[in-house]
Amino acid sequence: MNRDHSHSGERRRRGLRDAVCVILLALAATAPAAGVEPTWRPVDPDNLVFLELQEGRVAIELNPGFAPQTVAQFRRLAQEHFYDGLPFYRVIDGFVAQGGDGSDLGELSDVPLIEAEFERAWTDDLPFTPVQKPDPFAPETGFIDGFATGLDRAEEKAWLLHCPGVVAMARNDSPDSSRTDFYVVIGQAPRYLDRNMNVFGRVIVGMDVVQRIQRGPADDNGIIRDDTAASRIRSLTLASDVPKEERLSAFVMDTSSKGFADLLDSRRHRTQRFFRHPPPPVLDACQVPAPGRLTR
Amino acid sequence: MNRDHSHSGERRRRGLRDAVCVILLALAATAPAAGVEPTWRPVDPDNLVFLELQEGRVAIELNPGFAPQTVAQFRRLAQEHFYDGLPFYRVIDGFVAQGGDGSDLGELSDVPLIEAEFERAWTDDLPFTPVQKPDPFAPETGFIDGFATGLDRAEEKAWLLHCPGVVAMARNDSPDSSRTDFYVVIGQAPRYLDRNMNVFGRVIVGMDVVQRIQRGPADDNGIIRDDTAASRIRSLTLASDVPKEERLSAFVMDTSSKGFADLLDSRRHRTQRFFRHPPPPVLDACQVPAPGRLTR
Repeated sequence: MNRDHSHSGERRRRGLRDAVCVILLALAATAPAAGVEPTWRPVDPDNLVFLELQEGRVAIELNPGFAPQTVAQFRRLAQEHFYDGLPFYRVIDGFVAQGGDGSDLGELSDVPLIEAEFERAWTDDLPFTPVQKPDPFAPETGFIDGFATGLDRAEEKAWLLHCPGVVAMARNDSPDSSRTDFYVVIGQAPRYLDRNMNVFGRVIVGMDVVQRIQRGPADDNGIIRDDTAASRIRSLTLASDVPKEERLSAFVMDTSSKGFADLLDSRRHRTQRFFRHPPPPVLDACQVPAPGRLTR
Repeated sequence: MNRDHSHSGERRRRGLRDAVCVILLALAATAPAAGVEPTWRPVDPDNLVFLELQEGRVAIELNPGFAPQTVAQFRRLAQEHFYDGLPFYRVIDGFVAQGGDGSDLGELSDVPLIEAEFERAWTDDLPFTPVQKPDPFAPETGFIDGFATGLDRAEEKAWLLHCPGVVAMARNDSPDSSRTDFYVVIGQAPRYLDRNMNVFGRVIVGMDVVQRIQRGPADDNGIIRDDTAASRIRSLTLASDVPKEERLSAFVMDTSSKGFADLLDSRRHRTQRFFRHPPPPVLDACQVPAPGRLTR
């Protein structure tokens, strides 16, 4: 039924090999900057979580600097195997994938509530690499330890931005009502949630896996009422609980390195001939994530 | 190995049924506005494309108002079954999924080149529903016929924004070098590409399917060199070429309706008690897409 593309397939492979193609250099999300190469930092195994889904493996870095109580509770729940077997029961394409035991939806639970950790005190010693000032939703944005961050120097507050890949606790009306169920942002950054949720981590490897999580019906707020239709958490494990000889190591680009600052600059000022209409010198902090990688 | 969640599963279902849960109303991407309901408009079958992948069905609306030559060539290629069987050969998670015959990568092709259609003339009779002014990348943003649009009244130009779901032609260094290969934006809007590409459509149904397209290696610009590993286009068909009795109809929310303007207002001014820190009254045009649906 389909055309025979074997010839064009052969030509394509040749083309792929030979072409020096400006668009790739100009547009690639992970192309190196014009300056020095960014360095990478190892992720502390106490802050590294492996989320195993039927769709594949996801690595999450926790951020106790911004959400210490949330991270402590999440670590404890991981160690109790609380999440193993639970579904992503509320998944809205372009918004969030939310998983857990449903306590966010009015379910009884004896797991303690977590108090609001929506922002933290700003201090000058935080390794802040600036991105944009002002940003539509914040006086300033930048990176701290790989996480896109909002900053209000007048209020002396910093907070984690709701970028794609961010992991946060769901809650109800009360700011102090998050507990167990968490979501991953899977679409255009819902920045209106900034400073309103306990953001406590981000996906550093495996967003392609997260994007395969089964969606729920848009006209029912993404709720998947049939448990058997939902994507399921096989296991959620803290790296430091894995025997050292079996453990994968994770690295993320060091956002306090000169190389990362250079990378941001090269994206803020796109001077390649490719750009017929040079973009304004602004950056969306959520569009330049710090990449991560896993190694044996 | 996993805990027995049958009890909590039962409880969860009960919770799902009974809970009146503010977070759902407050955060849902498609919740109705406080004002009148938005109306829907039918999509012209000449502008409706069914992209069938092994991963599922995707519906795309073409936009001849902004990119008449690109749409004309794409329609012709669809009618020639040009795309049937071709792979998505360059897929970068969080950025774009690009498919076609590889001519964008230096492949020989006898398909004519398309001249740049990066923007169109602004005229006051265009059905523009405002979103944000100014926006970081444009003097104004809004919606025209369901598409997120940038507007510069001084230059009398309007253009389609690079939001998630947007479909555009790949090109090389010359602005007039697009031809056959196209990409779908699958991550945080790469707005720096605005006014630099032939944007000619957007996905109105099936972004969850697009998100399942096989990714390529990040360290090789997402290029999938093994043809057998790539996601493949089973068929790409114009709705008007499908016999009427077999054809699905598509509808998109009418972005020129009072209801849609009310919906935007309700997202710009989030006054629910849920918001401990009320967000600033700004909107990211790419975060409020006009939904679409398919019916028999």
